[in-house]
Amino acid sequence: MAIEHPYLMFLGDAPDQLAAKTAKGVADWRPEWCKGQFRLDGCQASLGLDDMTMEEAADAGCRTVVVGVANRGGVISEAWTDVLVRALNLGMDIASGLHGKLADVPRLKEAAERNGRKLFDVRHPTRGFAVADGKKRPGKRLLTVGTDCSVGKMYASLAVEAEMRRRGMSADFRATGQTGILIAGDGVSVDAVIADFISGAVEWLTPANDPGHWDVVEGQGSLFHASFAGVSTGLLHGAQPDALVLCHEPTRKHMRGLPDYGLPPLDLCRRRNEEVAQLTNPAARTIGVAVNTSALDAEAARRCLAEIEDSLGLPAVDPVRDGVARIVDALA
Amino acid sequence: MAIEHPYLMFLGDAPDQLAAKTAKGVADWRPEWCKGQFRLDGCQASLGLDDMTMEEAADAGCRTVVVGVANRGGVISEAWTDVLVRALNLGMDIASGLHGKLADVPRLKEAAERNGRKLFDVRHPTRGFAVADGKKRPGKRLLTVGTDCSVGKMYASLAVEAEMRRRGMSADFRATGQTGILIAGDGVSVDAVIADFISGAVEWLTPANDPGHWDVVEGQGSLFHASFAGVSTGLLHGAQPDALVLCHEPTRKHMRGLPDYGLPPLDLCRRRNEEVAQLTNPAARTIGVAVNTSALDAEAARRCLAEIEDSLGLPAVDPVRDGVARIVDALA
Repeated sequence: MAIEHPYLMFLGDAPDQLAAKTAKGVADWRPEWCKGQFRLDGCQASLGLDDMTMEEAADAGCRTVVVGVANRGGVISEAWTDVLVRALNLGMDIASGLHGKLADVPRLKEAAERNGRKLFDVRHPTRGFAVADGKKRPGKRLLTVGTDCSVGKMYASLAVEAEMRRRGMSADFRATGQTGILIAGDGVSVDAVIADFISGAVEWLTPANDPGHWDVVEGQGSLFHASFAGVSTGLLHGAQPDALVLCHEPTRKHMRGLPDYGLPPLDLCRRRNEEVAQLTNPAARTIGVAVNTSALDAEAARRCLAEIEDSLGLPAVDPVRDGVARIVDALA
Repeated sequence: MAIEHPYLMFLGDAPDQLAAKTAKGVADWRPEWCKGQFRLDGCQASLGLDDMTMEEAADAGCRTVVVGVANRGGVISEAWTDVLVRALNLGMDIASGLHGKLADVPRLKEAAERNGRKLFDVRHPTRGFAVADGKKRPGKRLLTVGTDCSVGKMYASLAVEAEMRRRGMSADFRATGQTGILIAGDGVSVDAVIADFISGAVEWLTPANDPGHWDVVEGQGSLFHASFAGVSTGLLHGAQPDALVLCHEPTRKHMRGLPDYGLPPLDLCRRRNEEVAQLTNPAARTIGVAVNTSALDAEAARRCLAEIEDSLGLPAVDPVRDGVARIVDALA
């Protein structure tokens, strides 16, 4: 697909800052793409960008309006339709990370067709994929894996891409979820792919490349998550990762959404991910641990990282507090 | 859905016996449901059933015409449409295991609606599923797993169901692929489910039951298949199996469709499947091995089974040659 930037970030009538989490992720990681924000009356969120009308955004060269806001039921609000039609009439595309599809709103579909514009429903893959062939391909790949869902895999992946590029390495973040896709401008929501094609979709997302190039692949779920481990397995096989980064949130009491399930020990989680990865890349190894210590104070965070580092014998960093330089060092 | 029987088995213009493999599976395992067969001119396959016209089938009480024949490209042949419309007009439903959908053929869709009849495209789940909750539920479940695809998991599952019923045990085969669904009259093609819902679909398929009841769940793929292991993982987690039966084909040179991948050692395959299964059912254990020895002569088969039995310390049988009594014995 390749969503064109610059973006106008659409916050609609977001009831609070948390509802604009997706937009915040895009603005944090691609500030140079985000020209401004659009807010309806009553919007309680802000990205700290200039407020623009649709006309101002079009004049400023915005190519896509990004709906980066959660909504009740995940659908396109009726209150948004008029203004989104105006965006299409002004020649901008629309991209949305909601469950409900832009393409299912008749007025948006009609306006997009009339204006020759595109609607990107990034949670819903529109292309077909081949079954994975498992063939070894050139280029290197790093995959983030986790003890649980929502432990910072996307953040760690983006931090690794940024650190690699800072060092002059050739690297591309490869997005597998809706926020990541809006940040990358392309990608596949792997959890929305038909089950037979999970690893095939990941092979497509991370194709053969120059021998020195790194694809930094956003992980999803966890091998230890009873709902989503199938997705995580397909990702491990399709990515054929050379390097794994294990992501963790140390204060999590149970697996997300599953009160009966505790988190796996880190060493077991590391071993199982390596075992699964080694089916398609026998050289796969874990190179570091990315820990989200945001719920800990500085001293507790330091202790937590030191303990993990000591027990696993791998660099353990909080990408937000410390950056990921030590993880990228470990690739050498 | 629940496909109603008796069935009329539709063989169309099958070019050879192999093209009618799905129909053969249904006729072998549910002979009491199969009233007759329907063949067009030039059909080179037969199930050994009475040939019937659509009118004769309807008069004989057939409720569903089962399209159990492979076709070039997996689509509904135009040559079939007239006669399938006649079946709908006579009050019968149609069920198909092809990739192409009955519901995408306008004349079939129109005739089904006009007659209030149903079209079952068993490869394409039409219901939605919840995300798996991983909660322990009553009832016992046995799952067949494999070193590879197409090693006899469906056959072994059906043989176990039959043996359990023969002993007066309460047991139901739970189908996860198209042939299995036509045999069971219900089920889910798990490889066609959206990735996020694989294990949720299996929880739906194998719900809470009487404590002494066995669901015998048809496995799919293999943890060691680089294309399909995500599906196998979701099946292991969703089924929460108490018992695993490991299925194998000893003459297979490489993983199906993947010339670069050899088959896993049986003991490793057993251990990995148990490890994955134990996430949602810590009591999961392998109780036996079902070996498809059809490519071996009787003496070689005997030696092969003895070697496997010896090395794994589990009963190893060929369900076709020996039956599965020793596997069901191992449950006690």
